[in-house]
Amino acid sequence: MEITAELALEIAHHAARKAHEIKVPVNIAVIDTGGHLKLFYRMEEAYLGSIDIAIGKARTSMLFRMNSEGVGKFLDPEKRTFGMVNTNGGLVAFPGGMTVYRQGQIVAYIGVSGGSLEEDFAIATAGSAG
Amino acid sequence: MEITAELALEIAHHAARKAHEIKVPVNIAVIDTGGHLKLFYRMEEAYLGSIDIAIGKARTSMLFRMNSEGVGKFLDPEKRTFGMVNTNGGLVAFPGGMTVYRQGQIVAYIGVSGGSLEEDFAIATAGSAG
Amino acid sequence: MEITAELALEIAHHAARKAHEIKVPVNIAVIDTGGHLKLFYRMEEAYLGSIDIAIGKARTSMLFRMNSEGVGKFLDPEKRTFGMVNTNGGLVAFPGGMTVYRQGQIVAYIGVSGGSLEEDFAIATAGSAG
Amino acid sequence: MEITAELALEIAHHAARKAHEIKVPVNIAVIDTGGHLKLFYRMEEAYLGSIDIAIGKARTSMLFRMNSEGVGKFLDPEKRTFGMVNTNGGLVAFPGGMTVYRQGQIVAYIGVSGGSLEEDFAIATAGSAG
Repeated sequence: MEITAELALEIAHHAARKAHEIKVPVNIAVIDTGGHLKLFYRMEEAYLGSIDIAIGKARTSMLFRMNSEGVGKFLDPEKRTFGMVNTNGGLVAFPGGMTVYRQGQIVAYIGVSGGSLEEDFAIATAGSAG
Repeated sequence: MEITAELALEIAHHAARKAHEIKVPVNIAVIDTGGHLKLFYRMEEAYLGSIDIAIGKARTSMLFRMNSEGVGKFLDPEKRTFGMVNTNGGLVAFPGGMTVYRQGQIVAYIGVSGGSLEEDFAIATAGSAG
Repeated sequence: MEITAELALEIAHHAARKAHEIKVPVNIAVIDTGGHLKLFYRMEEAYLGSIDIAIGKARTSMLFRMNSEGVGKFLDPEKRTFGMVNTNGGLVAFPGGMTVYRQGQIVAYIGVSGGSLEEDFAIATAGSAG
Repeated sequence: MEITAELALEIAHHAARKAHEIKVPVNIAVIDTGGHLKLFYRMEEAYLGSIDIAIGKARTSMLFRMNSEGVGKFLDPEKRTFGMVNTNGGLVAFPGGMTVYRQGQIVAYIGVSGGSLEEDFAIATAGSAG
């Protein structure tokens, strides 16, 4: 099942509504299961530096089919996985990247950046849930 | 005047409507006057290779504040400006990148890729005109 | 339909058999529809510089869902598509990259490099046909 | 002694058999003593993010002619070799990259990624031992 532009807009819409609700300007990226950009949306006042982070979180989530902070666990210094963070052109492994499921399977990945870790996570969750 | 997400959506909406009308699946990118991505929208069946081209056209247009094919004129082999095409991370200088004016000034740039040069130009024009 | 390792091996096997038959040492890459490497095989004496070319041909084919030389037509100097060759990290748009169809749909892309354009094309065709 | 495609296939075959046995889908890379890719094999369900890690582990092992976790010891924060991890395009220095000896000398390097550090190590060992 490939993500449609309509579904991507719906995901971004739900994420943006949550962002407006909690008053946090963010960047929202939606990518397909192969890692290619499907939709991107930047709210007013969102950090420019968060554009790349939002896309990076979605991409990191896609690369390991799990939330970005799940990938972050692999990078824990105690794991001593020296250099893993620099693979794949750079992993962005903290909250805000997330799988998007529909009908039991992953159809896309969302990445959100601009707020605190908790805010980005909450906004991505709102988008992912739809 | 900074582009708003609302205006970016409007630009993309007009471009996408034209694309649907002439049945050409494209990627549409809208960037701000600083060159940072504001909105991106990929239609179903649009080439994955056109994602980068759409963004590149908008960026090329921004770098010289003119349509992308206008930049192409600088790159004409007769000009002997060898290597200019490789500056700025690579120029993408053929039709489909365009200035977006509102109230007499440039507020954004649009880049469209996926169809023929004429189709991309027509779709970008529809988005730019609003 | 996602490509299996078994199918990827079969594709590479048919390509390599053809390469042995016409005595041309090549590199063979098979990537999935999202552009991610599935299988790579380098024959003895194949050029090291052709590793990247084989992968690049397959990737170029994937980006536009057509044979790599089909993408090459877009790059014809007469088209004046200045800079397109440098998009997507660099297109490799000459014969040897090819779609792989099974049951009416694209399941993978093959890229072959090491021989002449005609030889690479013939070897990729043998792999693609299966 | 240069690695042959036949030996590379044998190494990957033994690694994949072990991976199937312990039910861990992985990416397997075999590179020659100059660091050039000879064979790559991705099992179904293996993480896409592990493609680059598998190749990176083999490459890291090659660069210092030792297992990848051996290189990791140089990167231990206590060593204060700040920045070494960023050399050579990025080192990937944790278990799963390994020398492959035949007749007393190194003929290739294998890199495995997709499972836990212990699983990747076990699978690489199976491939290396042949």
